[in-house]
Amino acid sequence: MNIIITAGGTSEYIDKVRKITNSGTGKLGAIIANTLIKNDNIENIYYICTEKAILPVENPNIKIIKTTDTESVKEAVEKTLKENKIDWFIHSMAISDYNVKYVTNFKILEKELKNSNNILKTLNNPDEKLDNTKKLSSNEDNLVVVLQKTPKIIGLIKDVSPETKLIGFKLLENVEKDYLFEIALKLLNKNKCDYVIANDLKDIKDGNHKAFLINNEINVELNGKEEIALQIDKIIRKAI
Amino acid sequence: MNIIITAGGTSEYIDKVRKITNSGTGKLGAIIANTLIKNDNIENIYYICTEKAILPVENPNIKIIKTTDTESVKEAVEKTLKENKIDWFIHSMAISDYNVKYVTNFKILEKELKNSNNILKTLNNPDEKLDNTKKLSSNEDNLVVVLQKTPKIIGLIKDVSPETKLIGFKLLENVEKDYLFEIALKLLNKNKCDYVIANDLKDIKDGNHKAFLINNEINVELNGKEEIALQIDKIIRKAI
Repeated sequence: MNIIITAGGTSEYIDKVRKITNSGTGKLGAIIANTLIKNDNIENIYYICTEKAILPVENPNIKIIKTTDTESVKEAVEKTLKENKIDWFIHSMAISDYNVKYVTNFKILEKELKNSNNILKTLNNPDEKLDNTKKLSSNEDNLVVVLQKTPKIIGLIKDVSPETKLIGFKLLENVEKDYLFEIALKLLNKNKCDYVIANDLKDIKDGNHKAFLINNEINVELNGKEEIALQIDKIIRKAI
Repeated sequence: MNIIITAGGTSEYIDKVRKITNSGTGKLGAIIANTLIKNDNIENIYYICTEKAILPVENPNIKIIKTTDTESVKEAVEKTLKENKIDWFIHSMAISDYNVKYVTNFKILEKELKNSNNILKTLNNPDEKLDNTKKLSSNEDNLVVVLQKTPKIIGLIKDVSPETKLIGFKLLENVEKDYLFEIALKLLNKNKCDYVIANDLKDIKDGNHKAFLINNEINVELNGKEEIALQIDKIIRKAI
């Protein structure tokens, strides 16, 4: 069996020295990889991670694939899915939902919006791309960073590889449990996940990590990253 | 003698999981600290750094002071300057020139700008603060992040502690040497720096780091982070 695990938090560049980062550390992904590699049924783990993500133990059967922004994650995911028969995809990376479309200042924005709506046109034109390869001057009193939604990577996995089993992750903050389950099941059904790990930021602190493994039939409470990893291992063993 | 070295790159939170970071690694600051701590005239080094900055070697006379955003750097700098007699301040941290004032979406922004200018009022009111302690939903098609300039920390050092000698840093990208010197001297004169290390992003790669130590009298070309550190050490020894 071959597994893809995504881990870490992506970064989107505003300019050459400034970027927007998502705060995933990769810790959970690394623990899952370290747990699964002991499973004799698993041949290769493709660990698609961001530059500063925590890595699993060194092992010839764990292939580290480094990425930076959402676009590079998308490329790595598609390439790995196409070049290998992937049995399970565990998508624990915190991916930026937005990338940087446009940087301007408030005065220009106000003027353009009031007059010709040039910025709206730029925003609505998907071919118009920001030149974020330069360093911005720090002379402006304010900067306006326009972010646009990136295509969700979780949505393309089953399109590229329908046979791959998919475990998605949903993180919300400080919500009722029922609401968390509702949103997690929406993610599951929309993206044809086999399971979703649902968790709430308020339950992830001081080394604790409460989460729920759910799909339309089951709902298992898990306590700690090790338990999450062991539960994933159990599911994969059962599915053989 | 007591020294402050700042190192790393600051982060400004957009919400609970997204932040804008400056890409300083702290490598230069760590090399400077490692070089200066061998100087017998130096009693304490206060290493004010960001969370992920590279640290100098462990040494009881190097005090690590961790910071996150520009505001916390400001607090740490003021506190350290007030509580200790600081002889030299080496300001190699990459500090975000902007923090997050306001997050909205394009539709709301357009509407508010066309109607009542509420956003402009918010932007112009320094007491109006963004609640960036929550995680934003990822349902919006676009997000608009309004950034406002932060007060330059380099500008307050001589105000708080006029006797402290100050070495500033200026990083530009792909400019003519003369222009780099012009901007660096502007920084020097405006902030009463004793020296400025001027460098260009294009000269920092593949382990190389070309820089110029300048003030109104001198201009010394330096090659490599070690040479920059040794030159700073030399200046400090000379000034005793």
